Amino acid sequence: MTLRTYPRFVSIEGGEGAGKTTVLRAVRDALALDGDEVVCTREPGGTPLAELIRGLLLDPSHEPASAETELLLMFAARAQHVHETVLPALSRGAWVISDRFTDSSYAYQGGGRGIDPQRIAALDDGFVGIEPVLTLLLDVGVDEGRARARGRGAAPDRIEAEQDAFFERVRAAFLQRASEHPARIRVIDAARPPAEVAADAVRAVSTLRTPA
Amino acid sequence: MTLRTYPRFVSIEGGEGAGKTTVLRAVRDALALDGDEVVCTREPGGTPLAELIRGLLLDPSHEPASAETELLLMFAARAQHVHETVLPALSRGAWVISDRFTDSSYAYQGGGRGIDPQRIAALDDGFVGIEPVLTLLLDVGVDEGRARARGRGAAPDRIEAEQDAFFERVRAAFLQRASEHPARIRVIDAARPPAEVAADAVRAVSTLRTPA
Repeated sequence: MTLRTYPRFVSIEGGEGAGKTTVLRAVRDALALDGDEVVCTREPGGTPLAELIRGLLLDPSHEPASAETELLLMFAARAQHVHETVLPALSRGAWVISDRFTDSSYAYQGGGRGIDPQRIAALDDGFVGIEPVLTLLLDVGVDEGRARARGRGAAPDRIEAEQDAFFERVRAAFLQRASEHPARIRVIDAARPPAEVAADAVRAVSTLRTPA
Repeated sequence: MTLRTYPRFVSIEGGEGAGKTTVLRAVRDALALDGDEVVCTREPGGTPLAELIRGLLLDPSHEPASAETELLLMFAARAQHVHETVLPALSRGAWVISDRFTDSSYAYQGGGRGIDPQRIAALDDGFVGIEPVLTLLLDVGVDEGRARARGRGAAPDRIEAEQDAFFERVRAAFLQRASEHPARIRVIDAARPPAEVAADAVRAVSTLRTPA
């Protein structure tokens, strides 16, 4: 493992309907209390070009990407995101909170699509090179999470349209990542009410703040 | 090197204004003489999704891709092209002629952008896995090739808008590839009249045809 850890870089991970957006806002507000700059970003995306790559990945109008194509597009977007948005923000002392980062590739393209994690690690080492100091993994059962996501009423994108078995593999791969990286990845039970989940997340990131 | 060579797979490589399109048509007509199916394709592109990736790569309206992002997008498009177009055609016995293939990544992202060829080889081994039996490298001086390309009158895309020094590095990297793969890559002097260049190309591919 040759990844460099940045002490002000936090990622939020989890499946559909886990409540990532609510947690991201709570974490952002907590980190802004000291007057520091906080950059909220997301993957795939986070730069104009990377958002266009996101559009290709999620758009159901063309032929499906092969598993390998999907993985390479995710890492292309991530390389651009790190180069253009994440590293510049960290270099000027800002906090960076990313809605998804590399763990999602292990979960979706690894667990979900069946790509060997070692192939993902090779791209991670070769083209990303950094990792968050803290990852909040919002864990919720697939049935519950999907029911919440459907309740939002938007048409499903290409990945959201997958079957339940796919999302069970995604969840299992996320939990496997957490077991392999216990110091970095904090699993939060996201089946509870949103305010409790957000409070846990805020407590976790508060330990990162420099004592006054 | 773990690439699998396909006996009916031909690529055509070269810089701007080298005359690839003219050569591709002549080679297509020569291979069709025996009544075989001939699939003409191109990179980046060759499937609907890969053509959309091509659009992202060449569109000058968003921020520039980092060198690594450009490389990963090229390989994402190539993985899709191989999976959806090249291998299915080869599997049914067709000839495949590709306007550019992996050598272009070594030339443009390697020579042009300065990415270590070993990083390119890792993507080639991991996500492409095949190579042509014959590659026709149309070699022409940068000044001559760019003057021809400008004569076509179209607005330059993001890569065509690079400076001469970039294209000198691209040409040198193509010739380096040819020196490393003398059995596969045939260098054709493309500074000569188009009919002579096409005749050389047709002679080269004719040796691949099964004797009657």
